[in-house]
Amino acid sequence: MNVNAIHADLQQHFDQDLEDIRSFLRQPSISYTGEGIAETAQAVADLIAGLGGEAEVVETPGHPIVYGELWQDAPKTLLIYGMYDVMPTDEDGWMAEPFGAEIHDLPGLGPSVICRGAVNTKGPLAAFFTAMRSIMRVEGKLPVNLLFAVEGEEEMGSRSFPAFAERYAEKLKRADAVLFPFFEQDEAGMPSLVLGTKGMLYVELICTGGDWGGPSERGIHGSYNAWVRSPVWRLTRALASFVDDDENILVDGFFDDVRPLSEREAALLDEQIDAGRFDAGVFREAYAVRRLKDSDDRQAWHRLFSQPQLNIDGLFAGYTGPETKTVLPHQATAKVDVRMVPDMDPDTVLAGLRAHLDKGGFSDIEIKVYNKYPWSKLSLDEPAVQAMIRTYQGLRGELELWPINPGSAPYYVFERQLGLPYVTGGLGHGSRQHSSNEYCTVAGILDFERSMVTFLDEFTRGPQAPQGDAHE
Amino acid sequence: MNVNAIHADLQQHFDQDLEDIRSFLRQPSISYTGEGIAETAQAVADLIAGLGGEAEVVETPGHPIVYGELWQDAPKTLLIYGMYDVMPTDEDGWMAEPFGAEIHDLPGLGPSVICRGAVNTKGPLAAFFTAMRSIMRVEGKLPVNLLFAVEGEEEMGSRSFPAFAERYAEKLKRADAVLFPFFEQDEAGMPSLVLGTKGMLYVELICTGGDWGGPSERGIHGSYNAWVRSPVWRLTRALASFVDDDENILVDGFFDDVRPLSEREAALLDEQIDAGRFDAGVFREAYAVRRLKDSDDRQAWHRLFSQPQLNIDGLFAGYTGPETKTVLPHQATAKVDVRMVPDMDPDTVLAGLRAHLDKGGFSDIEIKVYNKYPWSKLSLDEPAVQAMIRTYQGLRGELELWPINPGSAPYYVFERQLGLPYVTGGLGHGSRQHSSNEYCTVAGILDFERSMVTFLDEFTRGPQAPQGDAHE
Repeated sequence: MNVNAIHADLQQHFDQDLEDIRSFLRQPSISYTGEGIAETAQAVADLIAGLGGEAEVVETPGHPIVYGELWQDAPKTLLIYGMYDVMPTDEDGWMAEPFGAEIHDLPGLGPSVICRGAVNTKGPLAAFFTAMRSIMRVEGKLPVNLLFAVEGEEEMGSRSFPAFAERYAEKLKRADAVLFPFFEQDEAGMPSLVLGTKGMLYVELICTGGDWGGPSERGIHGSYNAWVRSPVWRLTRALASFVDDDENILVDGFFDDVRPLSEREAALLDEQIDAGRFDAGVFREAYAVRRLKDSDDRQAWHRLFSQPQLNIDGLFAGYTGPETKTVLPHQATAKVDVRMVPDMDPDTVLAGLRAHLDKGGFSDIEIKVYNKYPWSKLSLDEPAVQAMIRTYQGLRGELELWPINPGSAPYYVFERQLGLPYVTGGLGHGSRQHSSNEYCTVAGILDFERSMVTFLDEFTRGPQAPQGDAHE
Repeated sequence: MNVNAIHADLQQHFDQDLEDIRSFLRQPSISYTGEGIAETAQAVADLIAGLGGEAEVVETPGHPIVYGELWQDAPKTLLIYGMYDVMPTDEDGWMAEPFGAEIHDLPGLGPSVICRGAVNTKGPLAAFFTAMRSIMRVEGKLPVNLLFAVEGEEEMGSRSFPAFAERYAEKLKRADAVLFPFFEQDEAGMPSLVLGTKGMLYVELICTGGDWGGPSERGIHGSYNAWVRSPVWRLTRALASFVDDDENILVDGFFDDVRPLSEREAALLDEQIDAGRFDAGVFREAYAVRRLKDSDDRQAWHRLFSQPQLNIDGLFAGYTGPETKTVLPHQATAKVDVRMVPDMDPDTVLAGLRAHLDKGGFSDIEIKVYNKYPWSKLSLDEPAVQAMIRTYQGLRGELELWPINPGSAPYYVFERQLGLPYVTGGLGHGSRQHSSNEYCTVAGILDFERSMVTFLDEFTRGPQAPQGDAHE
């Protein structure tokens, strides 16, 4: 494959690629409201068909999953995992239409596409297709067979994906590896490679009036709190028992199964710190965080990659609108996520939360489970991982390895269920996912496209013997 | 005044009265959204004009207040206080259109008007006017001069009312007393007379990320809670320090100024308990509350009328929609109301909340004050109070005295600011204010109309010598 020629072709056709990517971004596809989901699933199928592949919009109990095949009679096969759904856009502070895909000049970043999904992850998904289009244009065919599994429920915990993977296991297992295309460069341009992902337990803790007291069916006049207890106070007391004032988690056994970082992983992180590659100040500025849990950068960096969390994503009871309304609510709810590191087990953690509530006298508080999937880890020795490392080294001359992704994703489906190694990667930069003004840089899109071409080349050719002066 | 003839006239014209009252109820007037506020203020002015009075829609920084005069050159003058605003209707469980004013047969209650505002308090307000219309029809004039002050922000804490009262003080002070028309009968038909009202402090406690940690400007990706602290946990910990697991309030000095019930008040409540007049079971069933703070009815009854409360009306942070969204929020908010009994002082209580947060290390948590007004008490010896007692005794043969209204209302404006005694009252029954399916009974509306006629008669004539057999 003439990588240089394809890279040049990408430059030449970039204006059109950018327009096509922005057009794809403008189609809303909010998983939890369902807005635009059907249309976007079809758009993904059209992208696969546009490359000459065959696509199927697979119905599930939730949102459809787009399965596709682009068979090239190549020796190797790559499964492209993707997501076409995005988060809602109800945050304050958007500087542009959340689905407008407008290009704004961002300070220090240059022209950037502002759009929900720009980085997470409809931007990289669409740019993967434009990159493949370029290979087709130059080479006539791809160097690998591609399979596609693009889901629409990633932001809701990929609930239908495991069953789909089981149903399509025979087809999917033809892949040698899984690629999740993503813009992996940080603000400073350093690409990173993550060697796993934390697991996820997402629950609601629901306190309702009942035998212990409180209104049991509906909110009542606020003045009755004088003689009727409140589910809001009760949930507040229960929640407060989970952590101390410094937010240390107090659930018995919560940390029992936490596997310490391996020497290799710890050394990786230490090298990054020693090389000045991680600067807490950059993160804190980007996310408007004045202080991390750890004042020491090394401790902070180790914590992010080695520790689980217990986060309250949402909390609500009673009247949550503007101004004043008095009511004694009958229910209070906390949405809580646990991100689990190896070797934590989701069922054990769930049982620990239940036991903690029971021990505190809160056995009436219901735990409603939404998502529950384990962590996953991958090996540095996998050919796909090595191909991505060579891609970054070749195009950027450097990369960062992360022991685990602090976020969560259902990669266990590939690793544990299908036995396939996966890798997330690509050049390009974007940020502010799940926040207002999610963006990706325009320049990064071209870098991403090129990195996908290089990756396919590295992946299909395998490691090459070093080329020295001997040839000359 | 021929009270019997007017009572008969009310019966005769009841169908029309009911239609007029329902028509008034159908006009939404939600104070916190502003929906229908202007229209309803005008409708109140039209009701005053319809009796031959003069009305003025007085603009305020908030919603307008309708001031009116219906001067009859009578020796006595009554100020009618009213509210034309209502609560929102966003609760689940409405059996009919919240502003449909449909008539449904409710078990044990008979035909009833289901409508937001049916009892609190557009129902009694409209029925006061139909009652006056009947007096006019039979007598040609009223036995008292009426002044009107009908506000549209009661449900938001009557914020504009004190300034209005100051501005209109000269006019308002011509009144001998203030009447707030209300359906004061309980499910069993017992009318009650309240001799005061608790004060109100309504605040928001707001925890935002800052120097202590946490995202300071916007929510960030949920997975960052691994190394970034959460304002939600922090607010939860702060809130939980205000009460113990039994919801006992732990704020230093909170109860210091609580005046015990007087012997007379305590005796009143004891009499009601001894007479079996208060049945916790009836309250609990009506409000779907399985258990009160006190298992003993006498204690519960005393608590309601003698104790302050610290209630969480609303609690919110992060993602509060359906399903799952992960985010580390930058802010968490609790809406809290304190109902104060004599002799608690709002400023002292507010300072106590602040000191409690500071003592716990939560000096960063902001307290935003929305409402702050004192309790009020009125004397049994006031002529207006005595007139209402005679009205209930004459029409029902019984009544219950309550030492204080567990709810709150800005009656201090009348008592303290204008020096006017006030009384809340009227026959009629309704309930479920601030909840779905707020209602008033149809039969109660007629009883209410009649009670207003009788009250005006009692108020203007004053106490009569007992009429015995000696006349015959």
